[in-house]
This record gives sequence, C-alpha cells and structure tokens, in this order.
Amino acid sequence: MAKGAIVARAEDFPRWYHEVIAGAEMADNGPARGTMVIRPWGYGIWELMQAELDRRIKEAGAENAYFPLFIPEAFLKLEAQHVEGFSPELAVVTHGGGKELEEPLVVRPTSETVINSFFSKWVQSHRDLPLLVNQWANVVRWELRPRLFLRTSEFLWQEGHTAHATEEDARAYALRILTDVYRATMVDVLSIPVLTGHKTARERFAGASRTWTCEGMMGDGKALQMGTSHELGQNFSRPFDITYTNASGTLEYVWQTSWGVSTRLIGALVMGHGDDFGLRLPPALAPAQAVVVLVKETPEARSAADALVTELQGAGHRVRLDERTDTSFGRRSVDWELKGVPVRVEVGPRDLAEGNVTVVTRHSRAKQAVPLGALAATVRAVLEETGPALLAEATLSRDARTADASTLEEAVEGGTLGFARVRLGALGPDGEDRLAEHALTVRCLQRPDGSLAQPGDAEEDLVAIVGRSY
Amino acid sequence: MAKGAIVARAEDFPRWYHEVIAGAEMADNGPARGTMVIRPWGYGIWELMQAELDRRIKEAGAENAYFPLFIPEAFLKLEAQHVEGFSPELAVVTHGGGKELEEPLVVRPTSETVINSFFSKWVQSHRDLPLLVNQWANVVRWELRPRLFLRTSEFLWQEGHTAHATEEDARAYALRILTDVYRATMVDVLSIPVLTGHKTARERFAGASRTWTCEGMMGDGKALQMGTSHELGQNFSRPFDITYTNASGTLEYVWQTSWGVSTRLIGALVMGHGDDFGLRLPPALAPAQAVVVLVKETPEARSAADALVTELQGAGHRVRLDERTDTSFGRRSVDWELKGVPVRVEVGPRDLAEGNVTVVTRHSRAKQAVPLGALAATVRAVLEETGPALLAEATLSRDARTADASTLEEAVEGGTLGFARVRLGALGPDGEDRLAEHALTVRCLQRPDGSLAQPGDAEEDLVAIVGRSY
Repeated sequence: MAKGAIVARAEDFPRWYHEVIAGAEMADNGPARGTMVIRPWGYGIWELMQAELDRRIKEAGAENAYFPLFIPEAFLKLEAQHVEGFSPELAVVTHGGGKELEEPLVVRPTSETVINSFFSKWVQSHRDLPLLVNQWANVVRWELRPRLFLRTSEFLWQEGHTAHATEEDARAYALRILTDVYRATMVDVLSIPVLTGHKTARERFAGASRTWTCEGMMGDGKALQMGTSHELGQNFSRPFDITYTNASGTLEYVWQTSWGVSTRLIGALVMGHGDDFGLRLPPALAPAQAVVVLVKETPEARSAADALVTELQGAGHRVRLDERTDTSFGRRSVDWELKGVPVRVEVGPRDLAEGNVTVVTRHSRAKQAVPLGALAATVRAVLEETGPALLAEATLSRDARTADASTLEEAVEGGTLGFARVRLGALGPDGEDRLAEHALTVRCLQRPDGSLAQPGDAEEDLVAIVGRSY
Repeated sequence: MAKGAIVARAEDFPRWYHEVIAGAEMADNGPARGTMVIRPWGYGIWELMQAELDRRIKEAGAENAYFPLFIPEAFLKLEAQHVEGFSPELAVVTHGGGKELEEPLVVRPTSETVINSFFSKWVQSHRDLPLLVNQWANVVRWELRPRLFLRTSEFLWQEGHTAHATEEDARAYALRILTDVYRATMVDVLSIPVLTGHKTARERFAGASRTWTCEGMMGDGKALQMGTSHELGQNFSRPFDITYTNASGTLEYVWQTSWGVSTRLIGALVMGHGDDFGLRLPPALAPAQAVVVLVKETPEARSAADALVTELQGAGHRVRLDERTDTSFGRRSVDWELKGVPVRVEVGPRDLAEGNVTVVTRHSRAKQAVPLGALAATVRAVLEETGPALLAEATLSRDARTADASTLEEAVEGGTLGFARVRLGALGPDGEDRLAEHALTVRCLQRPDGSLAQPGDAEEDLVAIVGRSY
C-alpha cells in the first residue's frame, strides 16, 4: 500500500490534512454547518491533552467551575470592543420552551461577560483576590469557512478568568499561564516548538489591553496561533463593576486576565507532526501508545500476542491488540500508521519461530527484529525517544524556514515561505496593512533574543514574526 | 453559631436545600432563566463523580466522543415519540453569523438523533458491533420551574449510545450500565442506596421500549430519579436506517440502548445526606477530605498545622489549610460544616500544649482530642467509616419510610410519606391516573424480592414502588 492511503503532504496540504483526519477516524463534519463530530480516536487525544493542561492549570492555583451556555444579549454589549469583535460570529436563541423569548440569548462565544457579572458579586475585599477560575466548555463562533479542529462553529476549550489586586499581579499571572501552562504543554507534551510574544494592537483579543500568544509553525510553513493569554486591564472590571476594598479601605477596580486553548491543538498535532503516512503522535497523547498486531491466527502467535499485551500494559503503557486477522495485514498496518500509534509490534509465526517479533517505530518508520525477551525494553526506548525526536524534527523544519529580514519586502518574501523576523520599526507605519495585501500578518512581537517584551521596551525595536497563518 | 447558619431541614426542606447550596458555595442561578453557575466547590464534586463514572463506563467498553450541540430541526422529527416528548422543552437557534438561518437549529436536549445519524454511516457489518459510545456534554431542556442541580434549563451529563446485533445483547448492555456503572457508583461512591427497576409505559423515556432506572429516597421522603438506562429496540435504527450485514449476509436493523446521569446527582448528595448543619460528603467525592484549621496564629500552631497538612497529603488525602485567623473560629467551623468536609482538624495553642489536636467528624459531629502522633491513623479511620456510615443512615431512613400496601388507598398513604410497595395489579387499570391525582407516580417496577424483572414476568405481579418525586 505504501503511500497509497492518502495524498502526499507536499502535493496538496489541505487535502492531506483532511485525509489524515478522515483516515485516522479522528473527526467528521457535523450536520449543521461548521459543526464537528469528534470521534473516539480524536477525543481520546483530547482527553489526554485536557488532563495535562488541567493538572498545570490547577498547579497555577486556578479552580474549575462552570458558567451558563446562554448569555443575555445585553451582557455582551457592556464592553464596546468585545461586542464589536464578536457580533458577526454569534449564534442567537430566540425561542425557548415553545415561545419567543423576551430577550434573545446569545450562545457563548467566550465567557468574559457572564463570568465577570459573577466576579462582581464574589469579589468584595482584597482577601478575595486573586480570584482564579477556569472552565472546560463548548463555545460557538459562527464560521463561514469551517475546517475540522482549526475553525469550527462549535469547539471545545478551556477558558481561564482571573481577577487581581494590581496590574503587576495580573500581568505576572497572564505570563505564568503563557509559559508554565501553555508553552510547557505545547513543547513538553505536544512536542511542538512555539514562539511566544505579544500581539500588535491590530491582532489583539477584543477587549484585551495585551494579548500574549504561542505561535507554532505547521508542516506547510504557515503559522498556527495555538493559545493566547490576555491582560484585560480594567476593561471589564469597570463596566461590570468588579471592585474590592484594599488594605487601606479604598475601593479599587480589579485587574484581570483571560486565557484559552482549544481543540485546535489537535489540528496542530496533525499539521505539526503528520507525514505522508498519516498522523504521528507523541506517546503522551496517544490513546494507544503501542499496538500489538496478531499477524496470523495460530495458537503460538495468539498466546505470544496476549502475553506481550499483558507485559506492556503491566509496564504502564496504553496498549491495544489488533486481532482482525480477517482484514489484510497491509490494510491494518496502514490503519495504525494513519492513526499515528508510536510503536507497532507485529507478532507472526515466522518471526516467532526465531524467537522474535517485529517492532516498527512510527516516527522514523524504522523496523527491527526484536527477541521476545527484549521487547519491553525496546518499546520503552522507542516511547522515550519519540517525543524528543518529533520536537527536534519540527524545530529543524521551522528554523530552516525562518529568515531574518530588514525591510518590508524581505519580510514579505520570508513570511510567504515561513517566518520572517524583522524589526517592527522597519515595517513602517502602514506595515501591517501592506503585509495584509500579501495575506501576511505579524504573528507576535518579541525581543531580538526571542524573549518576551518587558515594560519600557520600545515597541518599534521589537522583532516582528511575520507569516501566513491559519 | 450552632444551627444559626441555615434553616432546619425539617422546618422547610426546599429552603434548607437552597441554603445549603448557597452556604456551601456550590452553585448560583445564572442570568438567563433556569441556567446555573456551578461554583468551584460544586464543580469539584462533579469532577470527582465524573472520574468515578468515566472509569466504570470505560471498563464497560464504551469510548468517549463528542457530537455537535446544534441539531437540525428535521432530525428531531424522525422519531415520532421522541419529538413529541422533547418539543415543549427545546431552545431554538434561528440566527447565526448575523443572518436568519434557513433551517432553525435545536440546541440538543439529548443526542439520540444526531448520534444515530452517524451510527448509520459507521455501522456496516456485524464486525462493527457492538458500537459503544459515550459523551460528556451540556444539554438544554427549557425549565419553567428550575431548581439548582435538580431541574435546570442547561445541565451537564454523560449520555451513552450503543448499537448491538441482537435484542438480547442490547438488553444485557443496558442492564450492565444500570448495575455495574450507575448503581455501583451511587451505592459505593455516593453512599446512596437506590432501588432499581423499570418504568411503566407512562414514565418511559420518549422513544424507548424499556427504561431502567435507579431511584433514591431523599431526606424529605421524596424519590429522585438518579439515572436511567434505556432499551431503544429498533425505534431509532429504523428511521435512521442503521443496518448491518449479519454473518449469513442478511441486512438487519441494529438494537440500541442509551443511558445517562447528570449534575442532578449533586442534588442527590445534598438531599440524600445533608443535615441541619449543611452538606455531608462521602470522602470519595469531597474536594477536600480534611481541613486543618489553624485556630490562632502562633509559631507553634503554624508549624504544627503545616506539618499535619504535609503528613495528611503524604498519606494520599485531599487536604486544605484554613489559615484565615482574621475570621472568627466559629464562622470558619460553620463554613466547613456547610461544605461537608468529612474531617476537621483544629490546631490551637491550648490543645498543642498537651500534645493534642481536636478532630471533628462531620457525619456524626463527634469531637475528640487526638495526640499528634495518632492523627494520621485517626483521619484515615474517620475517612474509612464515613461512606459506610452515610449509606447505613440513608438506608435506615429510607426503609423506615417504606411501607407495604395492598390497595391503591394504602399506596397513596404510604407513597405520600415515603415509598409504598404495592402489587401493580392491585392498582387497577387506571391506577397511575389515580395516583397522579395525589401527585404520586410509580417510580419503578421490581420483582417482589427487589430484583429486576425478567422476560416473561407478568407485569401485574410485579411490585410498584409508589412515591412523590422531584
């Protein structure tokens, strides 16, 4: 079968993306425009990702809660930029319980407004701060050009919302989430190298005073915004009247943050690591880390396969047995490659006669004959090497497509192929407009050494990362 | 403070329920009618419950997936009883992305229709069966008389959907979920005794051929339907055309089940175990299993409290430190009792001078002085005894309010005080109508020995459990 299962990545990247998702049985389009069905393989990845993020979010002190799906239309209108940003994307409920509603309800596109209406009740004194809340939820933003995982009218995400006594506290927390939760998960768990920085005013979240972002480069050289952490200043605390009494008895408005990542991260995994044979999963996010394939149904092969499954599960790995011997071996190999399972262990009578099984490493597609007694150690070694290998490969690929530029023209050239790094001041006052003519945007701003901007840095001396994007 | 914090349970049960939820900071009413904000304490309970259910659901072989929130109106109409049952409760999206939609979208009240439209694609051969899918999601059913956790317009739940080759397989799976997942979690984790049985035709799920149920008795003697598992027969597979080719090559319709439990279970915990001082949580569901209360800020008390927190966390318990010494000790004790934390460890200078701390057991409110060196063992013992003690107390209370009846009149009398057990045949042909005049329903049908009905049992010889209900 070889590459026959899906189109080559270099030939047609969008089609390749769709075929990987369909072939790996990760998701389907839902019946209502722009909606998505996340199938067990895709959802299994999401569950593992959620657990990794959730643990780090809790370590950062936030507690989970749940706020309503429906928001009265009037709430959205309290923060002017926020409503302007989200109005075109809203789904609106006008009828409930068989009657027309007196006030239409908006299906949440994000929950700043409803959550802040409760923060105003819950925050009274400086002792109530910081207030750190997170929720895992579905949100709806009407999509005219939907794409599975990347842009869907409904998606799953977590959204954190916090209130702090000072601007400095809020900034520090927004950055803690950016680096200790988001960047750490993306690099250490998803094995995707990300650039971190802040957005220009043009690209900021509607209602934020500063948006921090993690930007990854996908297999086609385009950027994907993988997660954002916003400083909201007092933009919501003023209209929602979230005040506290400070230690000296004065009433003050709180300073806030909000931050989120979504099922879009599954799209990042596909586009960040996929190859011509399908998905390649870092073991931390693989619903099955190893699959034991019963090549042919013989008593010896069956008992060896069962024993290996037990042994590998006993070693703490997530393991499946593929005993579909009525399906061709080639078809089954293609299926597991499409699904991106990191290790495939093929158990057949011929190998067994020599005391061996065949181990196939998904990320390199290397095959080796391994004696039964050495299998557990081999599988452990492959699982340990896979994440770092994927990260190294993605980093090399990104760096090879990243170019320094010193003029807008050079930035256009570099950004069209991958990322261009250019001093923001060099783009000129209408730089972002001119980039937009080439379908390019400033993905983020950083210091020249790649670190985050600090208060007092002159914006024009920061480096702009320019690229195409999803 | 004693009972001052909330109204006595016996005095005004509905008000008591509301005050426990508010006082324990579990939930608030949302801004849109019937919606709910689940605050961190309530959501923490839900997360623990989810984990217990999810593990058992996966052990039963189902995989998690996610289906869209929005369902085209036409889908709902495919199963006649289903649409009739749910129409009055629907929320309808008529506008999206700034335009009126060509076809209105229903916000899912349950997902049989959208899931079965995908099952019809995914099921082809007998090798695709059984197909066992579960999703954790929010659903919306318009509520005119909302009540936190018990009846809210939006609630969180899991809904399982399965397809099987034969009616027997489907029935066996519906019963496996009923007993091994739902009843096991309710009894072993929530510590609530439940009766299991099936619903009369009048009380069945809209679209089911048989609805199995778990019914608990709450602190006021009323029944709460805590979870249901439905045999759907071929009621959905026919309109949705879900067919498979059997081993001999014939096309057959699948047999199906669906089953769900929701955030209503949190209401069951409150009403099943709460007392005049608030919530009482089984340790398995307590976001904090023990709280160490620093009575007074002294160097000795502080260092002892810190050491005890570390020791108890090291023993694997979920532990919090209450160091709010600027709040009165009485207020803090009331707070932790309201929240239902199973063990309170009070660390104060006076006790410490004698080498002791005070341990308060929430479920019995027993206080004891415990030497520091014996604390870990005492806490472990209290945590071990709490679940069984709550279960025993709830069982005693239910049994004391359960009466055998042999006529409809006796069933009305018994059902008004608690549960009446009466032969269904004794209620007569219009029995359920006459019970309804007294606000009573048949909660479930069982064999006289309390076991589940078997195929071939004569319905009129089964025992009907009659009661008021939420």
